[in-house]
Amino acid sequence: MAGNSFGQLFRITTFGESHGVAIGVIIDGCPAQLDIDLEFIQSELDKRRPGQSKITTQRKESDTVQILSGVFEGKSTGTPIALLIPNEDQRSKDYGHNIDVYRPSHADYVYDAKYGIRDHRGGGRSSARETAARVAAGAIAKLFLQQQGIEVFAHVTAVGKINAPNLESNDLSALLQIREENIVRCADPATAHEMIEFIDAVRKDGDTVGGKISCVIKGCPAGLGEPVFDKLHADLGKAMLSINAVHGFEYGSGFEGSELRGSEHNDIPQPKAADAKVFKTITNHAGGILGGISNGMDITFKVAFKPVATIMHNQQTINAAGEAAEIKGKGRHDPCVVPRAVVIVEAMAALVLADQFLRNKLSIV
Amino acid sequence: MAGNSFGQLFRITTFGESHGVAIGVIIDGCPAQLDIDLEFIQSELDKRRPGQSKITTQRKESDTVQILSGVFEGKSTGTPIALLIPNEDQRSKDYGHNIDVYRPSHADYVYDAKYGIRDHRGGGRSSARETAARVAAGAIAKLFLQQQGIEVFAHVTAVGKINAPNLESNDLSALLQIREENIVRCADPATAHEMIEFIDAVRKDGDTVGGKISCVIKGCPAGLGEPVFDKLHADLGKAMLSINAVHGFEYGSGFEGSELRGSEHNDIPQPKAADAKVFKTITNHAGGILGGISNGMDITFKVAFKPVATIMHNQQTINAAGEAAEIKGKGRHDPCVVPRAVVIVEAMAALVLADQFLRNKLSIV
Amino acid sequence: MAGNSFGQLFRITTFGESHGVAIGVIIDGCPAQLDIDLEFIQSELDKRRPGQSKITTQRKESDTVQILSGVFEGKSTGTPIALLIPNEDQRSKDYGHNIDVYRPSHADYVYDAKYGIRDHRGGGRSSARETAARVAAGAIAKLFLQQQGIEVFAHVTAVGKINAPNLESNDLSALLQIREENIVRCADPATAHEMIEFIDAVRKDGDTVGGKISCVIKGCPAGLGEPVFDKLHADLGKAMLSINAVHGFEYGSGFEGSELRGSEHNDIPQPKAADAKVFKTITNHAGGILGGISNGMDITFKVAFKPVATIMHNQQTINAAGEAAEIKGKGRHDPCVVPRAVVIVEAMAALVLADQFLRNKLSIV
Amino acid sequence: MAGNSFGQLFRITTFGESHGVAIGVIIDGCPAQLDIDLEFIQSELDKRRPGQSKITTQRKESDTVQILSGVFEGKSTGTPIALLIPNEDQRSKDYGHNIDVYRPSHADYVYDAKYGIRDHRGGGRSSARETAARVAAGAIAKLFLQQQGIEVFAHVTAVGKINAPNLESNDLSALLQIREENIVRCADPATAHEMIEFIDAVRKDGDTVGGKISCVIKGCPAGLGEPVFDKLHADLGKAMLSINAVHGFEYGSGFEGSELRGSEHNDIPQPKAADAKVFKTITNHAGGILGGISNGMDITFKVAFKPVATIMHNQQTINAAGEAAEIKGKGRHDPCVVPRAVVIVEAMAALVLADQFLRNKLSIV
Repeated sequence: MAGNSFGQLFRITTFGESHGVAIGVIIDGCPAQLDIDLEFIQSELDKRRPGQSKITTQRKESDTVQILSGVFEGKSTGTPIALLIPNEDQRSKDYGHNIDVYRPSHADYVYDAKYGIRDHRGGGRSSARETAARVAAGAIAKLFLQQQGIEVFAHVTAVGKINAPNLESNDLSALLQIREENIVRCADPATAHEMIEFIDAVRKDGDTVGGKISCVIKGCPAGLGEPVFDKLHADLGKAMLSINAVHGFEYGSGFEGSELRGSEHNDIPQPKAADAKVFKTITNHAGGILGGISNGMDITFKVAFKPVATIMHNQQTINAAGEAAEIKGKGRHDPCVVPRAVVIVEAMAALVLADQFLRNKLSIV
Repeated sequence: MAGNSFGQLFRITTFGESHGVAIGVIIDGCPAQLDIDLEFIQSELDKRRPGQSKITTQRKESDTVQILSGVFEGKSTGTPIALLIPNEDQRSKDYGHNIDVYRPSHADYVYDAKYGIRDHRGGGRSSARETAARVAAGAIAKLFLQQQGIEVFAHVTAVGKINAPNLESNDLSALLQIREENIVRCADPATAHEMIEFIDAVRKDGDTVGGKISCVIKGCPAGLGEPVFDKLHADLGKAMLSINAVHGFEYGSGFEGSELRGSEHNDIPQPKAADAKVFKTITNHAGGILGGISNGMDITFKVAFKPVATIMHNQQTINAAGEAAEIKGKGRHDPCVVPRAVVIVEAMAALVLADQFLRNKLSIV
Repeated sequence: MAGNSFGQLFRITTFGESHGVAIGVIIDGCPAQLDIDLEFIQSELDKRRPGQSKITTQRKESDTVQILSGVFEGKSTGTPIALLIPNEDQRSKDYGHNIDVYRPSHADYVYDAKYGIRDHRGGGRSSARETAARVAAGAIAKLFLQQQGIEVFAHVTAVGKINAPNLESNDLSALLQIREENIVRCADPATAHEMIEFIDAVRKDGDTVGGKISCVIKGCPAGLGEPVFDKLHADLGKAMLSINAVHGFEYGSGFEGSELRGSEHNDIPQPKAADAKVFKTITNHAGGILGGISNGMDITFKVAFKPVATIMHNQQTINAAGEAAEIKGKGRHDPCVVPRAVVIVEAMAALVLADQFLRNKLSIV
Repeated sequence: MAGNSFGQLFRITTFGESHGVAIGVIIDGCPAQLDIDLEFIQSELDKRRPGQSKITTQRKESDTVQILSGVFEGKSTGTPIALLIPNEDQRSKDYGHNIDVYRPSHADYVYDAKYGIRDHRGGGRSSARETAARVAAGAIAKLFLQQQGIEVFAHVTAVGKINAPNLESNDLSALLQIREENIVRCADPATAHEMIEFIDAVRKDGDTVGGKISCVIKGCPAGLGEPVFDKLHADLGKAMLSINAVHGFEYGSGFEGSELRGSEHNDIPQPKAADAKVFKTITNHAGGILGGISNGMDITFKVAFKPVATIMHNQQTINAAGEAAEIKGKGRHDPCVVPRAVVIVEAMAALVLADQFLRNKLSIV
């Protein structure tokens, strides 16, 4: 009820604060006999890890993950999988100056209002460090989905006002390779170059900037998603909106689709070729989801991230007594979160898909 | 697990099909001793009711609600409140021609794919008729919130490419009155007039059009929302995305906010006046929510609806065997859903707020 | 959270008060394509119905059930199944004399303490009338289990100090026939005769008496039950203890088993015959469950019911002000609940099994 | 859904295997600002620890607990509390001889049947070692209950056929002191002596024996428990039945109560003394619970444990192929679990009470 769990059947519970002993996650509901590839989990964490490039925070964490339970001789046993990531570079002293001051657009005030107590070190539980646990769990969800032929791919499609062109390729492996060749994680190299230059300039200004991430899911069979409240896109939306700094979510035709007429927006089904298995439509304004249920077409959605609140400027604010105070621009932070958030978006999408895949097994017995 | 329930503590479960005997809802978790005003519930349903104007579907349903349980001498008793809305104008025969044909951009195919069986009459469970049950339950959530001084207000801010200007007023009662004076439910009379003309023209074309609804919540105390997965805006987002035809959700600065710099986006807290109780910021890009928790400022969000898929044109499609088929434009439908969806948006927002209000009571004991 | 739902995947939510408009239940999670036999559901309700014999309460209710949703052309569709049972013989006036007095060993006081409001008519929500909704839902669970070859059978094995001998038969249909030939529902005719005489004598004394019901489940495959908190017997225990008047639950060797030594209690597995499929042990102290998981042997448990609190004697008690008061013996009641509770025990057992059957489908994917 | 979580609002999730790296627990929903006394948590674990006396298993584990998150400057913060207990004396090689053989009355076969894979080392997840995590979490629940004036006390009241007399005292601290002065944890010293002698004799025979534990809860206010499925005693029953080796649960008058008449069983309320706050009855057959809701009287229940399945005798059994096999009596085990289970019973009771205490805060708003 305190909201630290996600998913119904493939269910995760995360714990840990930015500057505590460790963060971690329990996965309850991973089916037995899945091959658990620890190196893959670690490689996913490496994509979210701080300090990986000049455009990310310089906090030093190796984010080395340990498996505490639920895996025997390399396979899941059906019992809870516990993953632990010790914190290494806590440097709590960096945050001593902020104890009594509410940082603008941070969660400091609301934690005090809600709990009457707050672990002020690095934002405590409100820090995006918690998402490392999600990435670790999401890696196991990806292994599960791979077994079912489902692939999840995200990349940065906007930084500030710089937008990437639409992808033409259907080869997600190739796109992944291109994406990982640049530090901003945009699968269009020319745009990537422009974005990196811009983030670097923003960083030198001591400022931050927002951006957008687009995601596509291929190979998803028809039938995933529950028809009323737990529509597939509603679960994806909640998953994305639960990521730190996300302010918007749209799928398929999204906000722009609301400007169209039905005669323009309707996706016309194509007669099935002799040997085909799947439902196909000419356009895909539906984003692969009808009535909340996957239709077998590509699932597409987009996520908007606001700019990071920690900036290197001095800012006016208030203290816990409500009096005027000034906060100094100081500490470590990301000038733009989207490069590190790509793998978080994928992880959360994979967790939703794994959960809805299991749920759909119950539709007919 | 089948996704017909919403909320954790103030929890609803809906049931019923478009052309079955009745639809209804159970509310489990409404605290005892709340005054249950049946007339208010009915007046909310009247705002969603079909046939209320020339720009809505002509299906005839009085949507008369009955209380079956949980209320004694006008007050909630703490036991489940069951609300029933009998279906009156089922006219199943209207839908006989669609049994074997998958209507474009409808859920027909995916229900067959998921369940291997489908109540084809009027879309069965996938019909937006299910939302009447939400409106009835949402009315009780509103009564609960009123007791706490929390007000929820939504109105239509876009139809196709026609956009309303931003509201300047803080007086929600006045805005509500203006909104209810026009059939499109936009609180700006001039824009409302334009929207109505446009919808009427679209209707005459046998076509449909999408739109947007904006919502503001006033009087919400700081502390609502759980910090990790069940962030207040994540729950609101899921609630909105679970409404039929919704394709996008944003709160506060939303998608546009992702184009800004941190120095522009940060909301600067103002020193508290001597007798003030609340946290105040100069701007409200946060949309009243920081780190997933309400901060006491106005909560603001926007929802995008795609155009209705049922149009009066003939369309190409396929049948259950995957063969080419044509579907005739015939039946009753809404040219634009947003006028009737305003009260659904409010209902779902009220359900989220009531739920998170109760959850927040557990933060400190 | 208010505790009106039971089950995780095959999940029911009941509503309604003893003297309200109706009682009912929503089943969410019944897989699609199950044949729903309305006559069977009604026949199960008839076994719980009041007024069925001289040893049950004389309240007159036909308990006629209606299906409101979730069934199309005789089959489940995968959407919520709503079942409604209107109340007919409410006679609220019978209860007017008890408004301000707390009946001994009834829930009157605790409802006031918990909610500060109470529907005093016939016990409101605390009445065992709520169990009719469980029997209706349990009938659908039985239909589901039958499809899987799982049978549930219960009968009365004790009334007061009169105990039935152990059953020797494996033919549950034959036992069911014998059980239904006597009004106390004991499958041993000689004991049944003795029990009926005794209950009738107790009734003439204006008194009540407790009893015990034993249940056996045949055909359950190995693997049902989750290993830690949701052990199969823990879920069965909770299900039984949630039935009105139940004060004890034991499975397999039960309380007596705690007096044995391990060398006596261990069930020795037998080598598998050439064509056999199942695990077999010589004894079955385990009651068909090891480590919380079914092992394929018969599942056996026993449930103890206290005597009904409503008696026809005058009793001392207190009123809402805490002052001494006297309560008159008056109204309608059962001299012994176990004959009507047999089908409730079966229904709750079936609901647990159906739920755990679905859960077990997720163990390996 | 995989059943490794317990509780709704004060919710725990345990993880870990007998011979893995560690076991542990996440508590999600502990309110903020509770004083977390690490020494108390450790002292509770010490009561369950193996190797504490001659009548417990000789496995060597210090069961030293670490807090990983959720506590700041000695107080709970409202975020998840993670507790870790590393395994020290795994000695997996001891169990190599049992890999392919199903130990009689152990969970080996059913894990294979359910998951198709099994961590055979020391029983893996089916080992009672998992209960250490429950005791750690239960200690925090006890701290929470102490703050509310609620005390939980259990002790051993039967070993085999040796039964303790009923307690006369209301002073739980005094009883606790007496209980902790003997290694069998019976609060009656004479019976304790007899029990210890008997267990020691059984141990020398290489055998095991079952027993019973009784529990009393004092200071619980009226109103805890939800009226239909989540009755207070139903939750207590499930909690107890989820403990390894438990085969029976009864509360208040229990199984014996089912032999009584209503006129004998009804608890007569006493007029309230001028300054009294609580509801009082002359007898307490109800065990402090009416209609599933606490009435303010002492809550009483009893739990039956079967004898431990691991004995030092050679036993006939089968292997995974279903062929006859013999198992040698070898390894470490408890001759009787009840002395170590007393604190597990208390922990699970405390978790239920803490959960229902929070739930009851939502009854009236």
